Amino acid sequence: MSLFLEVIPVSEAVEVVRQIARPPRSEEVALEDALYRVLAEDILADIDIPGFDRSTVDGYAVAAADTTGASEGIPAMLGCLGRVGMGSADACSISPGLCRYIPTGGALPRGADAVVMIEHAEEIGGDLLVRRPVAPGENVVFQGEDFRAGQVVLERGRVLSPRDIGVAAAVGAGRVSVVTPPVIGIISTGNELVQTDRVPGPGEVRDANSYLVGAFVAERGCLPIHFGIVRDERDALDEAITVAFSRCDAVLVSGGSSKDERDNTAAVIADLGKVLVHGIAIAPGKPTIIGTVQGKPAIGLPGHPASAYVVLVAIVDHLLAAMQKTAVARRTLHARLTENIPSARGREDYIRVRVGEGEAMPVFGKSGLLNTLVQSEGLVRIPASSEGLESGEDVEVILW
Amino acid sequence: MSLFLEVIPVSEAVEVVRQIARPPRSEEVALEDALYRVLAEDILADIDIPGFDRSTVDGYAVAAADTTGASEGIPAMLGCLGRVGMGSADACSISPGLCRYIPTGGALPRGADAVVMIEHAEEIGGDLLVRRPVAPGENVVFQGEDFRAGQVVLERGRVLSPRDIGVAAAVGAGRVSVVTPPVIGIISTGNELVQTDRVPGPGEVRDANSYLVGAFVAERGCLPIHFGIVRDERDALDEAITVAFSRCDAVLVSGGSSKDERDNTAAVIADLGKVLVHGIAIAPGKPTIIGTVQGKPAIGLPGHPASAYVVLVAIVDHLLAAMQKTAVARRTLHARLTENIPSARGREDYIRVRVGEGEAMPVFGKSGLLNTLVQSEGLVRIPASSEGLESGEDVEVILW
Repeated sequence: MSLFLEVIPVSEAVEVVRQIARPPRSEEVALEDALYRVLAEDILADIDIPGFDRSTVDGYAVAAADTTGASEGIPAMLGCLGRVGMGSADACSISPGLCRYIPTGGALPRGADAVVMIEHAEEIGGDLLVRRPVAPGENVVFQGEDFRAGQVVLERGRVLSPRDIGVAAAVGAGRVSVVTPPVIGIISTGNELVQTDRVPGPGEVRDANSYLVGAFVAERGCLPIHFGIVRDERDALDEAITVAFSRCDAVLVSGGSSKDERDNTAAVIADLGKVLVHGIAIAPGKPTIIGTVQGKPAIGLPGHPASAYVVLVAIVDHLLAAMQKTAVARRTLHARLTENIPSARGREDYIRVRVGEGEAMPVFGKSGLLNTLVQSEGLVRIPASSEGLESGEDVEVILW
Repeated sequence: MSLFLEVIPVSEAVEVVRQIARPPRSEEVALEDALYRVLAEDILADIDIPGFDRSTVDGYAVAAADTTGASEGIPAMLGCLGRVGMGSADACSISPGLCRYIPTGGALPRGADAVVMIEHAEEIGGDLLVRRPVAPGENVVFQGEDFRAGQVVLERGRVLSPRDIGVAAAVGAGRVSVVTPPVIGIISTGNELVQTDRVPGPGEVRDANSYLVGAFVAERGCLPIHFGIVRDERDALDEAITVAFSRCDAVLVSGGSSKDERDNTAAVIADLGKVLVHGIAIAPGKPTIIGTVQGKPAIGLPGHPASAYVVLVAIVDHLLAAMQKTAVARRTLHARLTENIPSARGREDYIRVRVGEGEAMPVFGKSGLLNTLVQSEGLVRIPASSEGLESGEDVEVILW
């Protein structure tokens, strides 16, 4: 067995995790509980929206033709028939030369095809002076203009935003079919690890990864379950992974993913299932494992939190999205790089950067430092085909 | 009483909502439940991180001076003393001319000041051939280099990201003090409104705002409580607002915010407390009310969902942030505008745009359309001092 990892390109690793993702289950929830959930079915408009021709302003419903040529100097004069009631089932109408006051959202009377804004008209006795002409359709939203009955309003796979929730309410989707959150088991392995509430002794460090990975998974709409810290012993890891797979749709193990003699993750995954990838041409994050156990994804992450997080963003994000049949939700922006960054050809480098005023500033310091995670706003990816980026180049920043 | 609103600039309205925000309460939660919560107190490192000089690679702990001049042709030769144990309390050391194998994360032995990567060395019998020199400190993170004991790691007011959660775990913050989510009462008013699960009759529309506002408030870390749909009747609205304030830290009423005779929100807020602002120089969203009841914020939003949402983003966001002593979390990007957009001087216009490939494309169509909310990715703000933006201009997009 070689001491070194045989690495594959990031794009291939992404392809592998997409392939091992199994289709999600779905469930129905009340719309008010559906924020950020992934739609499992299209939402259609059940009726025309709006259901009637509707005024968008406070004003007067008119036949537009009656206002032709109206001006400050020579206003048009119309007879005023009173108000349009809100939410009223009483059909009302106007005849040529007449108008009705209509509040915002009111149903346009039959015979009207436009609304004169209150600012451009003056009521005097029972008459209305109109000081500006309106075009047909002005200040009106017509029946079905927003959404037609039967039209797809929100597509399957969409992560529901607050605006989507509002629009779903408008089309009657009081309950929606959403993806059941995949359950993700989380294990940290390492003899040096102690729990957060303990003060580490000599040579010990706290287990940051359980929290880091759990929060990442939760942010991506999944349900993390923690299986704690496991020592670097093959039997212990075997048992922990087996138990985790009995309850979870996928398991993420951090630590023990390299080829040191105390690194057991790949061997245990191979025992229980299959190792598909061991080593990715990515920095940081090379010692990453992709495999399956019971046909479910089993991922080995580097032990160092900063490296693990880059792998979460670059690789695991695609797995979790595929498990929910949604797209990777990635916010990016363009910025001007402030420094040269050399890179090895054949390896994708992910450089942590701060972002401000259109500039991307590499966060220097050793890649193993945790503080780079909180002092950066995102990552700049240097493709495997590149030998680096130059100061002043326009780069895409993947925001954390 | 004038038929028209006396408007104030957006910047003044923002100042007013900031002033009426009262300081938040705080509570302690387990770190795993703190994702996206607002920190109420700084988190400090309780100890040096790391707590010892730590290897960042798998390799050999050496005295850097022993590798001076090492090369492929003339490697340095060191005696090999065995392994550094992980998480071990056993102090170990090396003397000049000697080395120890050290896994990633291992504690550097006394006498060593650098680590040679495994790739650049070869073990032969009990000896190690080193083929590249290392500098002092190479592949090592020194004690306290990441965080010093007592140093502020995460500042009060920060919204905790997954990365923050991981870093907090590393510094021992297993429980954290976070802002108690403000409780926000939500009321929709309008005779035309029916609940989402009903099919609207003639002249009726479904109440989208309760859902839209509720989801926005939840996204901003607050707890929405719904008080349903109220008819356009002063007594009914008075009662609903009074009940809402008995349970909530602030109340948002949508609808009834203009000056039509059926618009009661301003009058009811004036009865129960104080109206500070009625009308903002913003489009859409002019008929907006800012007031207080029992010293707590009372906001009147326009009835149309698309207008209400712009006011939520432009004004209410600042209120909810101030109520939690945090900054408005706003993601923006720069893009090239694809069309001219005229605007009235003296008014801030918010134009919905789609974003793609560095371009911001205005979503045309009547501002009263709901579909603009789901077909746009954000807003471009046209300042009150501007008469419009030109095609090709670089604009800032506030992402939804």
